[in-house]
Amino acid sequence: MFPTKKVQTLIGSKIRVEMKGSERHLLEGTLNSVDDYLNLHLLETVEIVDGERARSLGSVILRGNNIILISPVE
Amino acid sequence: MFPTKKVQTLIGSKIRVEMKGSERHLLEGTLNSVDDYLNLHLLETVEIVDGERARSLGSVILRGNNIILISPVE
Amino acid sequence: MFPTKKVQTLIGSKIRVEMKGSERHLLEGTLNSVDDYLNLHLLETVEIVDGERARSLGSVILRGNNIILISPVE
Amino acid sequence: MFPTKKVQTLIGSKIRVEMKGSERHLLEGTLNSVDDYLNLHLLETVEIVDGERARSLGSVILRGNNIILISPVE
Amino acid sequence: MFPTKKVQTLIGSKIRVEMKGSERHLLEGTLNSVDDYLNLHLLETVEIVDGERARSLGSVILRGNNIILISPVE
Amino acid sequence: MFPTKKVQTLIGSKIRVEMKGSERHLLEGTLNSVDDYLNLHLLETVEIVDGERARSLGSVILRGNNIILISPVE
Repeated sequence: MFPTKKVQTLIGSKIRVEMKGSERHLLEGTLNSVDDYLNLHLLETVEIVDGERARSLGSVILRGNNIILISPVE
Repeated sequence: MFPTKKVQTLIGSKIRVEMKGSERHLLEGTLNSVDDYLNLHLLETVEIVDGERARSLGSVILRGNNIILISPVE
Repeated sequence: MFPTKKVQTLIGSKIRVEMKGSERHLLEGTLNSVDDYLNLHLLETVEIVDGERARSLGSVILRGNNIILISPVE
Repeated sequence: MFPTKKVQTLIGSKIRVEMKGSERHLLEGTLNSVDDYLNLHLLETVEIVDGERARSLGSVILRGNNIILISPVE
Repeated sequence: MFPTKKVQTLIGSKIRVEMKGSERHLLEGTLNSVDDYLNLHLLETVEIVDGERARSLGSVILRGNNIILISPVE
Repeated sequence: MFPTKKVQTLIGSKIRVEMKGSERHLLEGTLNSVDDYLNLHLLETVEIVDGERARSLGSVILRGNNIILISPVE
């Protein structure tokens, strides 16, 4: 299964996303939709700082090319 | 609804955008238009520094590939 | 009007461009041409450092994908 | 053999991947799938910090454009 | 004239190129060829550090998407 | 000759590649293959740190968009 298809199987479940940026940038949320560029729409998103849930962001759109890594949250 | 479609539903309303750059770069403005690359045209844009509205930028165009995250402002 | 069309309306007028790079990188110049990737050709370009016109660069071409933000100079 | 084809020959075996990010970011895992953009799906992924296996990440998707380097683990 | 066409008019003459990277990265060389992505082939290339010609690199290929700025050297 | 064609003429010979990343990142190896995106497959690759051959990496694939500069090693 191709990497983008694998991400599609995660729709409706909770994922962790590491984004590019000047500092380590981790987000956790429920995957609502994804397209071929790995642009993501997450719901109930929270920022993770030092392993702790730091700030609630709600509904967010993430630009695919700035995603480093996506992993399912067990 | 695909991520880019979700952004289209935000036209006319206020959004917050986190951009790439050497420091954390947050902007808030009214979304005037968006294309398939997530290039954005914002009106009445202000820079947010340390959670405060810092500088008024007015009308700005943001390059889609340098956007980290878009979220609606409630 | 799409974001790239908005930039085309700025041809012939003065714009400010924030570029990616290791430090905050601001340029001001007269927009001579722009293409669909937001590659820009500026004339009479100057670098802005700490809000001051620092260095004259003349005619420059800027690569679209490394542009963070474009705004008209009033 | 083209570079992307070479990566396809590594499916099922262990690879090391260096990613972009604010610090040196190394991952090791079993390559499950790869597409034309070099998006990767890895299994049993671990983060490597200072040459040591630091953190277990399990199943991860890596965005191709943020990959610096891929090498087979002997 | 579109930005990429403008660069084509510089073939055979000396240009200055600012590249992305962890530090400010300036190169000067004679433009031998350019394609639609602004990939460049330069000859007699030298690195510029603190405004001085620092290191001779000879023939180099520069990846277009990592170019910040191109300007003719008068 | 277009920049990507120029790189193709270097197949079978030794090249030096500067990559993006958080620190200056230099690699030297024998070019085995290259595609239109400048993705590279190198053999007998070594990392260069402070002008010295630091670490042997063997066979590596480099993602084209993260390449800053390619030059032949004389």
